[in-house]
Amino acid sequence: MTFLIYAYFCNMLENKNSSKTSLSDLGEFALIDHLTKKFGLENKSSHMGIGDDAAILQHGNKPTLISTDLLIEGVHFDLSYMPLKHLGYKAVMVNISDIYAMNSIPQQITVSIAVSNRFTLEAVEELYQGINLACKNYKVDLIGGDTSSSTKGLILSVSVLGCASEKKIVKRDGAKENDLLVVSGDLGGAYAGLQVLEREKAVFKVNPNTQPDLSNYAYSIERQLKPEARKDVIELLDELNIVPTSMIDVSDGLSSEILHLSKASKVGFHLFEEKIPIDPEISLICQEFKLNSTTAALNGGEDYELLFTIDQKDFDKIKNHPLLTVIGHACDNKAGCQLITGLGHQIEISAQGWQSFS
Amino acid sequence: MTFLIYAYFCNMLENKNSSKTSLSDLGEFALIDHLTKKFGLENKSSHMGIGDDAAILQHGNKPTLISTDLLIEGVHFDLSYMPLKHLGYKAVMVNISDIYAMNSIPQQITVSIAVSNRFTLEAVEELYQGINLACKNYKVDLIGGDTSSSTKGLILSVSVLGCASEKKIVKRDGAKENDLLVVSGDLGGAYAGLQVLEREKAVFKVNPNTQPDLSNYAYSIERQLKPEARKDVIELLDELNIVPTSMIDVSDGLSSEILHLSKASKVGFHLFEEKIPIDPEISLICQEFKLNSTTAALNGGEDYELLFTIDQKDFDKIKNHPLLTVIGHACDNKAGCQLITGLGHQIEISAQGWQSFS
Repeated sequence: MTFLIYAYFCNMLENKNSSKTSLSDLGEFALIDHLTKKFGLENKSSHMGIGDDAAILQHGNKPTLISTDLLIEGVHFDLSYMPLKHLGYKAVMVNISDIYAMNSIPQQITVSIAVSNRFTLEAVEELYQGINLACKNYKVDLIGGDTSSSTKGLILSVSVLGCASEKKIVKRDGAKENDLLVVSGDLGGAYAGLQVLEREKAVFKVNPNTQPDLSNYAYSIERQLKPEARKDVIELLDELNIVPTSMIDVSDGLSSEILHLSKASKVGFHLFEEKIPIDPEISLICQEFKLNSTTAALNGGEDYELLFTIDQKDFDKIKNHPLLTVIGHACDNKAGCQLITGLGHQIEISAQGWQSFS
Repeated sequence: MTFLIYAYFCNMLENKNSSKTSLSDLGEFALIDHLTKKFGLENKSSHMGIGDDAAILQHGNKPTLISTDLLIEGVHFDLSYMPLKHLGYKAVMVNISDIYAMNSIPQQITVSIAVSNRFTLEAVEELYQGINLACKNYKVDLIGGDTSSSTKGLILSVSVLGCASEKKIVKRDGAKENDLLVVSGDLGGAYAGLQVLEREKAVFKVNPNTQPDLSNYAYSIERQLKPEARKDVIELLDELNIVPTSMIDVSDGLSSEILHLSKASKVGFHLFEEKIPIDPEISLICQEFKLNSTTAALNGGEDYELLFTIDQKDFDKIKNHPLLTVIGHACDNKAGCQLITGLGHQIEISAQGWQSFS
């Protein structure tokens, strides 16, 4: 108890303005590393901890995967253009995408919400309608959660549990030199959609009676407001009898994800700019907004596509498949991660990603 | 897409002040029930969903339990007297207590935090020191989480995973008529501690140089700032070869928990006021604050003791055990839940509990 009362005094008497290290100096990934480096794994049932899309544990004879995300109003979403139903749907997608990124099947979710008193029951119901739709579409069960009031805005915390047989689980650390780097779908769309929505929000503030014609932006807005996790890609890989050597989902942007695979697998990558799949609508929006579409794909994030490596022997199985594009290959670690431009220039890939603390 | 753009417009143009149902009309438990009633369980691996201390799932041949809690600054804790290290410790206790309340062993946790820019790295480190100490003391592994910035204050979301053999898991729904109602430790302490701390905070605001003598309040403050989950009670029950018929942890107050057991098990309860274990220090504090100590035990909450029912045949095994007190028994459902006072009066038990929305 002496310690306790002492601690109590310290806290109450502490000068909260004394100069210390700011969190924005570190960034999210470094912060997690720093805070958790002293935590070991003691239980036999804890197979893999922090550092991949999901953690792996095993209480019986089959592994369970778990991943968790916090979504905070004003940081991760803006309710002035994100309908609550879509937010609920997206919150589930963001999480189950992490389980697919381990080549595994999401099975259960827990959803905790905290809401300030500006939310009505009907508003929270809308949110849960979106969660329910996502659960039905992806055959995931809501099994738990917590509700609370918040002092400001809406806070969502979602955890997802999945399973797979041991030999099918794909981590970030298995890529080998010469493996092909493959991405599903196309990239940069969610970022382009965000630009469109932010512009419309600004217009709306000036003149709330404008009726914007958004028909040219339909795909990009859908990518931002109602992304779909790539269950179909996981099913396709299973049909094609391909187990990727490494995998990650594109939540922070292609650059950041390639660097994650590189760091975990200890290989470099060559990424060919011309191969990066970008939808024509997205290219047009990037032109309109004077953005480089490669930059949108590299740093935009929130596309929730799957990025993975496969052995060259599997190339014929995926060749010309409309869902998948080979965008590069793994190389010697010393070569680092390089973007090869159309003119053949090499540019080192750096992670811009999404910095919630900056 | 038509729906999507339509929804987008609706949201942007919506009158957010139209009169709707306020969340405080419902309360936390009713809100969870209401929001989740349309969610069924589709996966064979989802054994039990919302409605107990933890959910149960099974991906291999042994069940996994999961429980999750959100802790929000200004709603669940006050950093002016809650040291961050204690907060980290308590956040883990609150969660693993839910797994013990299923007669199961917590094994893994995930911790997500969101912090505003008033927190320094050193502050967040202190929080994680408390989490780490709790993990070590209770042999639980931190396996995942998320970090983010917040627009206001500190937000913690903790999920815990546990396991047990199928036949040892104890839910809320197994109490039978004539079963004995047993509680571990003593009650009302955390609530008394909160009163002391709130008073000191008020004194401190007026005169920051006062040096309060808190030695008479040591136990109550510890119950509030550094609660311990009842791992020892679960181990004791195992040694005594007792599997309770129903169990819950005392997080919202004895009244609320008895009503939960009653509702789930479809039995009534007789609770004897004179049997409710209250520490002498807590009685004195209640006198000082002009509080009824029975009320503190019934409605105070945050004691994290275990409340459970056992078959009468197990009575001899626990009789006079210093950790356990028989405080009543289950009776016919029609009789409802009654507090029997020292003078023999019956008072119907109503849940005051902890209402985060009021």
